[in-house]
Amino acid sequence: MPIKEGDYVLIVGDSVRSVVRIVKGSRISTIRGIINTDDVIGREYGTVIKTNLGYNMALLRPLITDILLEKANRITQVIYPKDAAQIIINTGIGPGSRVAEAGVGSGFMTAMLAYYVKPNGKIYGYDKREDSISVARKNLEMLGLIDWVELRLRDVTNDGFLERDLDAVVLDMGDPWNAIPKATEALRSDGVLVVYVPTVNQVLKVLNAMNKINYVDIRMFDVMVREWKTEPTEVRPQTWINAHTGYLIIGRRTIMPVTQPAK
Amino acid sequence: MPIKEGDYVLIVGDSVRSVVRIVKGSRISTIRGIINTDDVIGREYGTVIKTNLGYNMALLRPLITDILLEKANRITQVIYPKDAAQIIINTGIGPGSRVAEAGVGSGFMTAMLAYYVKPNGKIYGYDKREDSISVARKNLEMLGLIDWVELRLRDVTNDGFLERDLDAVVLDMGDPWNAIPKATEALRSDGVLVVYVPTVNQVLKVLNAMNKINYVDIRMFDVMVREWKTEPTEVRPQTWINAHTGYLIIGRRTIMPVTQPAK
Amino acid sequence: MPIKEGDYVLIVGDSVRSVVRIVKGSRISTIRGIINTDDVIGREYGTVIKTNLGYNMALLRPLITDILLEKANRITQVIYPKDAAQIIINTGIGPGSRVAEAGVGSGFMTAMLAYYVKPNGKIYGYDKREDSISVARKNLEMLGLIDWVELRLRDVTNDGFLERDLDAVVLDMGDPWNAIPKATEALRSDGVLVVYVPTVNQVLKVLNAMNKINYVDIRMFDVMVREWKTEPTEVRPQTWINAHTGYLIIGRRTIMPVTQPAK
Amino acid sequence: MPIKEGDYVLIVGDSVRSVVRIVKGSRISTIRGIINTDDVIGREYGTVIKTNLGYNMALLRPLITDILLEKANRITQVIYPKDAAQIIINTGIGPGSRVAEAGVGSGFMTAMLAYYVKPNGKIYGYDKREDSISVARKNLEMLGLIDWVELRLRDVTNDGFLERDLDAVVLDMGDPWNAIPKATEALRSDGVLVVYVPTVNQVLKVLNAMNKINYVDIRMFDVMVREWKTEPTEVRPQTWINAHTGYLIIGRRTIMPVTQPAK
Repeated sequence: MPIKEGDYVLIVGDSVRSVVRIVKGSRISTIRGIINTDDVIGREYGTVIKTNLGYNMALLRPLITDILLEKANRITQVIYPKDAAQIIINTGIGPGSRVAEAGVGSGFMTAMLAYYVKPNGKIYGYDKREDSISVARKNLEMLGLIDWVELRLRDVTNDGFLERDLDAVVLDMGDPWNAIPKATEALRSDGVLVVYVPTVNQVLKVLNAMNKINYVDIRMFDVMVREWKTEPTEVRPQTWINAHTGYLIIGRRTIMPVTQPAK
Repeated sequence: MPIKEGDYVLIVGDSVRSVVRIVKGSRISTIRGIINTDDVIGREYGTVIKTNLGYNMALLRPLITDILLEKANRITQVIYPKDAAQIIINTGIGPGSRVAEAGVGSGFMTAMLAYYVKPNGKIYGYDKREDSISVARKNLEMLGLIDWVELRLRDVTNDGFLERDLDAVVLDMGDPWNAIPKATEALRSDGVLVVYVPTVNQVLKVLNAMNKINYVDIRMFDVMVREWKTEPTEVRPQTWINAHTGYLIIGRRTIMPVTQPAK
Repeated sequence: MPIKEGDYVLIVGDSVRSVVRIVKGSRISTIRGIINTDDVIGREYGTVIKTNLGYNMALLRPLITDILLEKANRITQVIYPKDAAQIIINTGIGPGSRVAEAGVGSGFMTAMLAYYVKPNGKIYGYDKREDSISVARKNLEMLGLIDWVELRLRDVTNDGFLERDLDAVVLDMGDPWNAIPKATEALRSDGVLVVYVPTVNQVLKVLNAMNKINYVDIRMFDVMVREWKTEPTEVRPQTWINAHTGYLIIGRRTIMPVTQPAK
Repeated sequence: MPIKEGDYVLIVGDSVRSVVRIVKGSRISTIRGIINTDDVIGREYGTVIKTNLGYNMALLRPLITDILLEKANRITQVIYPKDAAQIIINTGIGPGSRVAEAGVGSGFMTAMLAYYVKPNGKIYGYDKREDSISVARKNLEMLGLIDWVELRLRDVTNDGFLERDLDAVVLDMGDPWNAIPKATEALRSDGVLVVYVPTVNQVLKVLNAMNKINYVDIRMFDVMVREWKTEPTEVRPQTWINAHTGYLIIGRRTIMPVTQPAK
């Protein structure tokens, strides 16, 4: 597939790894020299070209996570790919799923959810801050994912969700325990509730709230991904890692009466 | 959605978490008493019913990973959901992707890949053992995913892959370094190669092989997921965890000449 | 050094790793055959002898932790060596230190503390359960460490510690927050308080208690030690590990008035 | 105990944690204001005094690790306290032990070993670099530990150790596999060999070397210590941690003939 004007391209070479949008007649500066975009347009993805200083640079289609982490605007803390991956695999969210998310923040989680529910699913993204809705919309447009997302400026804790019978609801907000009753109404009868919180103080409040009403099969995880150095003569884990982002709490709604807990 | 005969149902209650296939006129035994399947058929998912001993049991749609881990046959080591999730998020595999996998083993990774490439993608699953192909086929049929998978009894190391221009190739075999040249032929020009190996001895061989030919952006991870106890009065990580399954090595193919390494 | 009757010996060979007390005229059974103790007595430590089935077995001086983990009685949850090590290095407890511990439980932590404060230090071990005091005494006698320990049957929460000006106090009990005021009285003016608790519910209570009174430099850790398989052809982390034991909370006493918090 | 001129004092307050040596008639600057050392000398350790800006600062005896990490010169990679702690607990090194270490580097591990073998043990610290011996000597003098250490400028790989019958030998060098034969000669008949290496390439070479000669009970660890935020209202692990320093490999010497491996 040839590279076209307007494409986002991942450039990888010696000490270089960056995502660049290709504009005709322009120059890409790297710490290993310059590439003219006119030498890039029309080349096959996977081509390796040389900078003016003679360094090889590979031209690759970026993953959605590459674009997110490098080009998307961030106005809030975001859910990282490692956590998004665990959420997706532990909820069954996949092609065709209908999922609500509150709050969307900068739209990172929204984007990853949208990517996996294509082409028939839909993400309903809520936030009560106007700037979040606006930044998330721009990020989703950049990623070509806006068609699978409805963004809604609305306070779910007080005003609730507009949808019913959802496969899953993801709560990524400071006080998710307050939004659980409204999330429960929006879920299908055995839908999946996901809560993402950074502190153990919040964990205790969420677990209390979920155990008080209709939730069963409540599970909680923290995810540590160690990235390694891959130079064949010096293979070892990276020294510093992001060892804590947040806790994932996942439970299943039921339609039992609230006064008769299943456990 | 009402439960029908033939459905797999996840039953969750006090000390009970199991997947059961619903057969008319039958009884489900749990350590907390018995449920008649005739009381289950026709009920909404999410319903909580009582066993003959009076214990509440919730009836839920199982996730694909619930069915895999409980009902699928295993004749080999399998790739676990935590690792499958990291592979999927770090490769861009999603709805519409075309991916080859060698070897399929018991078909666990195949199933998780198939679930996420629906409805337009396809998984090409290779194994040189006839029993693997046969077990994987049964597991994929049970999960309703066989339509998105082509299984092939074939030794990829010697005979190569039948496809070209694939988005990704996943190697899960004892000596993946020997299969890398054939995998490279099957990948699209900037396709993603994923190798999954349990030991550091194998890691060194894979990294050597990938660095010798057309690969760039080589990354390696190990994933640790800590599951927690979620009883609100006693919240803490589980004591024992599966702390090592395998190492994930991911790289991008390029079309540079082999004699001119990009780094 | 030759092996004597009465010694504890660590026997290591194919699938064998166990601590045995050597009794004259006796036989040691292993899953790889039998050793006569008369062939053991008088041999140098480090000698490798053969079982009656021809398997090599090395005869080694056990570490104190080998004896603890294999031969000591346990009537309570114990503090593991990995955590004891972090406590010791983060408190400055060493040769000559005077330390109180409540409760001693089975005496595992007591033994490790006693080992490192020799020959001039002392451990004051408190427990309100008579069986704990009695089991801990037997374990400490077996290990030859009782001379560095005073065991006291006493409820520190209500009745306090008998010592003053201690270098450190270690609290390993269900409700350590209630014992902190008495521990503070027993510490030297800038002494180290260590609290060990398994759940985050307890963590929050301890941190609240320590922040309310004279403590500064409050730090908290959890320790994960991954043991590896060391067969040179198959090097990788063990599959299952004990990933959670407890949280270590460490703070320094001050003599500031309680009404003037340092932070 | 009152603070004297020349003491190292750990000062802890709002955003301040630093070790300072007290010089008469001098001023200590912190980001929260100034303290006059004349207001410090003669005060009890544990006292909380105010800076000229009114901030509380606690005056504490530093741990040896506090001084090491803040005041000691570093001219090499060092072994961190978390790893030193695991080495010490897994080798039985304690009061009275005689241990050799090669290479001493900046003397961090040497200092921690010396601290725990007091008052009757001894550390023999080898390095082939003159600047290491000189920096390590200064660090050990600063810590008051030089009396328990003999430093030797000598290449152990070629020239061997001067001691015999040692309880343990610690190898912290680039190519420890080459020094294992000489280390074996220096150990007592069942002594403990410890090797510390950062990469898996080195791990494979060490394990090969130890398995070829007289070692049994070979164990390997990596240690991850997560430090937490301890603000009572926001308790969670720190975001970034030092997740990899090195691998610890520990084995026991035997006196079996080399041609008859015990396993």
